[in-house]
Amino acid sequence: MIGIFDSGFGGLTVMKEYLKQYPEFDYLYLGDQANNPYGPHSKERIEQLTMKGVDFLVKQGCQLIIVACNTASADALRAVQQKYEGRPVILGVLIPAVQEALGQSRFGNIGLIGTRSTVASGAYERELEKHSECYQPNDKRAREKVKVYPQACPLLVPLVEEGMLKNPATRMILRNYLRPLKHAHIDTLILGCTHYPLLQQEIERMMGKNCRVISSSKASVMAMRSYFEQHPELLEKLSKNGTRKYVTTDSPERFGELGGRFLGERIEVERVEY
Amino acid sequence: MIGIFDSGFGGLTVMKEYLKQYPEFDYLYLGDQANNPYGPHSKERIEQLTMKGVDFLVKQGCQLIIVACNTASADALRAVQQKYEGRPVILGVLIPAVQEALGQSRFGNIGLIGTRSTVASGAYERELEKHSECYQPNDKRAREKVKVYPQACPLLVPLVEEGMLKNPATRMILRNYLRPLKHAHIDTLILGCTHYPLLQQEIERMMGKNCRVISSSKASVMAMRSYFEQHPELLEKLSKNGTRKYVTTDSPERFGELGGRFLGERIEVERVEY
Repeated sequence: MIGIFDSGFGGLTVMKEYLKQYPEFDYLYLGDQANNPYGPHSKERIEQLTMKGVDFLVKQGCQLIIVACNTASADALRAVQQKYEGRPVILGVLIPAVQEALGQSRFGNIGLIGTRSTVASGAYERELEKHSECYQPNDKRAREKVKVYPQACPLLVPLVEEGMLKNPATRMILRNYLRPLKHAHIDTLILGCTHYPLLQQEIERMMGKNCRVISSSKASVMAMRSYFEQHPELLEKLSKNGTRKYVTTDSPERFGELGGRFLGERIEVERVEY
Repeated sequence: MIGIFDSGFGGLTVMKEYLKQYPEFDYLYLGDQANNPYGPHSKERIEQLTMKGVDFLVKQGCQLIIVACNTASADALRAVQQKYEGRPVILGVLIPAVQEALGQSRFGNIGLIGTRSTVASGAYERELEKHSECYQPNDKRAREKVKVYPQACPLLVPLVEEGMLKNPATRMILRNYLRPLKHAHIDTLILGCTHYPLLQQEIERMMGKNCRVISSSKASVMAMRSYFEQHPELLEKLSKNGTRKYVTTDSPERFGELGGRFLGERIEVERVEY
């Protein structure tokens, strides 16, 4: 069974990509809605909450766990990976997004948008630096080194959760957030938050044709394919009955309602305590 | 000592009013920032969190506790009052706001803005109904019964926390929230959230001269004065060394920074666990 951990229902944009690519697997989605949003929390608090969520998924028998939340991936992935030492395999969404961005960037000007906490963690910058061998500019005008332009966009999560996707106020706020990135002539933009794919079209329109927009949700499932190629034993081991289960730590009603919007289909949600 | 409990730093607008009116008392302010915001949580979750916070304040020796958060007052006040049975005295911010609104309303058309959870709880409507004897219209055109127009404004908290008080997008969102209340010709508007006093001027401007705007933060301290008149023994018992202490359940840095903006002065914040 594949466990998908998220701070709420945003991770359903990741789950959606997995279901498209790998419908045969069994999935258990956990949204820690009782402590949502993680964005404004401190690193310590995020580590503690992510650890508890991952512990729950491990106890339920997940053999592969995706930490779908960017904030949790940025602040807490290392701690949970160190605790479990590869049993089960625990993966985040940052490195896939970073590799994809480096592979697509033409001039090495990479923008990043995310929650305040994701941006403040500096985790994307660190991973972009670490994986910089993936960046092979073949354009003469390109930088030799990658330059990252981070931008915290704390209002986008509540705006998306309010369903204000096509709202003029949302466009105004989005335009303000993106302005410094446009001025910096970024050629690639990482959507470093699970909620942002719902605004992807609008963001692409605002950034224009010369900027590739990378969704961490989509990048995660693309990276999984190569992970499976390298680890066929994991692919073998995962149960394949096509079941899906959705659990949350707070009221399942609103979770189901909003979650359905993120996943694009109606879901039944159960409440769990741990 | 007076304990002020809030889900975050919003309650500092209540504290500010208390400090103005009663600077001589000792205060302990607890902001449960680790679980902030309460607005999107379920009633059960809010009850559980409020109970833990109040338990902490009781253990610290508070003889009077104000639940400053409207969401917690709406969803959890009764449960904590039942547990402690008047020892110590635990008061919320709803009833003061309700009494003030009923006292000011000319035609009985009362609007209410708050978080999704405060509005969904129906607590303001229930209290307005229960205290309706406070409404004594002396205008011929007045309704005999009060009519309440509730409006959830889930984006105002994040907008205020981002400091976007004078921002055009904030104005646009605010105008959309207030439009149905203007159409209903409300004559009184309750600001049913601790964050909203920071937008009070803008709200007053939009609602126009014919609508009184009642801040639950200010109403709370006004009601306290009459409470003390009725209970002079409590006034006597409370320690009066003019000390203030601010504690939070998450990172004290951002709390101090934002809290200062709400209180209007710099504060030292300590982290607590309970």
